[in-house]
Amino acid sequence: MRALDIVMKKRQGEILSAEEIAFLVRGYVDGSIPDYQVSAFLMAVFFQDMTPEETGYLTREMIDSGRTIDLSALSGPFIDKHSTGGVGDKVSLILAPVAAACGLKVPMMSGRSLGHTGGTLDKLESIPGYRTDLTSQRFAEIIGQCGFAMTGQSSDVVPADRKLYALRDVTATVESIPLITSSILSKKFAEGADALVFDVKTGSGAFMKTPEDARRLARALVDTGESLGKKVAAVLTRMEAPLGSKVGNFLEVEESLAMLNCPEALTRVPNDRRSDDLLNVTIRLTAWMLVAGGLAGTVDEAAQQCRAAIDDGSAWARMEENIRAQGGDPAALYERLGTFRAPVAGTIPAAGDGVLTGIDAYAVGMGGVYLGAGRNTATDDVHPDVGFELLRKPGDTVAAGDVIMNVWGHTDEAVRQAVDTVQAGVTIGEAGTTVDGGPDEMILEELSAL
Amino acid sequence: MRALDIVMKKRQGEILSAEEIAFLVRGYVDGSIPDYQVSAFLMAVFFQDMTPEETGYLTREMIDSGRTIDLSALSGPFIDKHSTGGVGDKVSLILAPVAAACGLKVPMMSGRSLGHTGGTLDKLESIPGYRTDLTSQRFAEIIGQCGFAMTGQSSDVVPADRKLYALRDVTATVESIPLITSSILSKKFAEGADALVFDVKTGSGAFMKTPEDARRLARALVDTGESLGKKVAAVLTRMEAPLGSKVGNFLEVEESLAMLNCPEALTRVPNDRRSDDLLNVTIRLTAWMLVAGGLAGTVDEAAQQCRAAIDDGSAWARMEENIRAQGGDPAALYERLGTFRAPVAGTIPAAGDGVLTGIDAYAVGMGGVYLGAGRNTATDDVHPDVGFELLRKPGDTVAAGDVIMNVWGHTDEAVRQAVDTVQAGVTIGEAGTTVDGGPDEMILEELSAL
Repeated sequence: MRALDIVMKKRQGEILSAEEIAFLVRGYVDGSIPDYQVSAFLMAVFFQDMTPEETGYLTREMIDSGRTIDLSALSGPFIDKHSTGGVGDKVSLILAPVAAACGLKVPMMSGRSLGHTGGTLDKLESIPGYRTDLTSQRFAEIIGQCGFAMTGQSSDVVPADRKLYALRDVTATVESIPLITSSILSKKFAEGADALVFDVKTGSGAFMKTPEDARRLARALVDTGESLGKKVAAVLTRMEAPLGSKVGNFLEVEESLAMLNCPEALTRVPNDRRSDDLLNVTIRLTAWMLVAGGLAGTVDEAAQQCRAAIDDGSAWARMEENIRAQGGDPAALYERLGTFRAPVAGTIPAAGDGVLTGIDAYAVGMGGVYLGAGRNTATDDVHPDVGFELLRKPGDTVAAGDVIMNVWGHTDEAVRQAVDTVQAGVTIGEAGTTVDGGPDEMILEELSAL
Repeated sequence: MRALDIVMKKRQGEILSAEEIAFLVRGYVDGSIPDYQVSAFLMAVFFQDMTPEETGYLTREMIDSGRTIDLSALSGPFIDKHSTGGVGDKVSLILAPVAAACGLKVPMMSGRSLGHTGGTLDKLESIPGYRTDLTSQRFAEIIGQCGFAMTGQSSDVVPADRKLYALRDVTATVESIPLITSSILSKKFAEGADALVFDVKTGSGAFMKTPEDARRLARALVDTGESLGKKVAAVLTRMEAPLGSKVGNFLEVEESLAMLNCPEALTRVPNDRRSDDLLNVTIRLTAWMLVAGGLAGTVDEAAQQCRAAIDDGSAWARMEENIRAQGGDPAALYERLGTFRAPVAGTIPAAGDGVLTGIDAYAVGMGGVYLGAGRNTATDDVHPDVGFELLRKPGDTVAAGDVIMNVWGHTDEAVRQAVDTVQAGVTIGEAGTTVDGGPDEMILEELSAL
């Protein structure tokens, strides 16, 4: 077997066998196939696509290239959620304890913010003392204890994906559905999940800007998961405006605590806007996890269980237990509620009277990069205490001068740039304008193979 | 400027600027841009194509990457011909002395056989003493003296093409029209030609199997040449059966001498079949060169001059002078005429009565590789004295058992494999069958920008 023939075959749009994909991935990892052949292959895949079966072979090879997390000492069901990334997307921080409170085990390996999108690890690390560099033994112990654990990805999990992703990043082959699919699925299945629920976002603040692209990715995730004999569901959700009412690292932790009915949050930030868009998306995704795990017969039934776990405080109890287990200091965390803000404050006022028709999520994400909430490059540091608070959401009636958003940053310059960037993404229409994408319209489509 | 952005732009089907292409080629040659980015770029070009202007920028950069041949001490016009390669294609050996006899200067840098196609250098080297490794000074002197010279490509001419071609060869990106075009044009213009005439072959024995593909390449060659301000003509010719009546290294020299009316050839191999397909293609291509060089007003007028140069012996006189100038020994060459044959002989007989409808050129080319006329890989040696003689051509009436071809090789095994391979490509139809592609139907189309 020769790598050249495999590249040629894919270039011609032919379907590769499991053996051919295994040959290529193993050869790339062991260094016997040079990167220039692999990058030509990746570009051919970009143009010629892969079937769910081919994508499944690729995923399987990437999983087998490294260590997988052993959760066999625990009883499942092990179900995780993955989001394709958005602005204000703190769903994981709420969903994991809710799912755990309902009886699932959630082995969650998360990433860091990059570009305009936030990262769960950066958010968690704004909790004083919280560690996201768990050993796999400690990861398993905490899952056993709290029902969920949150950690960064270990370097010996899916090394083939790390190597391939690094090559894709410098060869303009990131945006390929089968390559995205295999990268996501390999990481998630290697961490020990039996089933996965995907939040595939679409809109200006998402990786997939159009519903068509998002649907293609969702379809590939579900079909490839099925080809691997795994349960997968995918929910297409809107990402035109930021999700919820806070964007930033600690600001999102704060909002998550309030959503989880944390008593200290309800006392210390009582005037927080409770955003139904965030709640609805989170409940729906968690409900799919319960169905995937066999803990509910229907998604609606499961959604009732999730709401109950929030209302009765059991979800928050799981979160608090997890914070302690992962080294966090709840008392120090509570002290930060409502007070942990970078020193330079700014506001984004309404430019006129009417209906707020849009707050562009991409603009807010890029504004966050100026503030230091996110990163331009993977090695940048982030600030935990910067970001935005949305006092108004699309659909609200506003008068000229009303404060739409508060902004916090470390320098006048950063705040000015962030305000300018975000301001350009704020649109106001005539009184009476109807706005799409309200809290009850966040879910665009659902696909599943359960 | 970043290589990644250029790869991305081409991947998205955008048109690159001269500066972007220069950045990429120079960076690749100087090592600042890694091969994995260039191979991704090449694959993106395979799928997204390039305009003639982009292909022209690429060609210009490849020319400028190395030394160009300086013919300024001579007076032109300097016109060369390039063939995309075929079986039995000894056109260069006849065309160069004819063009020189008509008043052109032909600076010809040729290649070696590879795969099923022959190479001019291998053929020339079957002439005792003939050298194809001329210095560029000697190359220019011989052009001044004989009107043409034939040499291999110097390693300091178009180093970018050498480096890019080596990468294309291992990344399944050889078969891309703009990449083929820039590779051919850069080599030919770097050798000092003012104008070029292309023989773009199509059919089983050609690189471009279909007339559509051949037309695309011809169009790209002409349009790109025009974008570089050069005169280019392209002639699409048939390559379904071998061209002429001999295939092999010395065998093709022998046929070329006969075509040039070399007196010794007429005496020593008087019964050679004189093939009008070969003559017609050669005359037409040479005529286009004369028109490109301003030595004739029309192609038909030019063709008359070419035929006259053959008939009056002036073309042969040029060839003999060139053989001496390049170190060849005419007397030793004449001794070989009709006698220089590898020891094991075989034949390919007609399997039945009827009309010979086809002799598959690709099968003959591959049969030649078994004999050692051609090469499987670039480092194989070739035999000068092996090959095929076609006693019959498609369109001829044959009876069962008639010898269609003679075969010469060095081992029984090689001859057996060659016979089996070629036999499978010989087809005989019912009496009265008409066969396309006769000597007067060799030219399919002509394109020019003169």
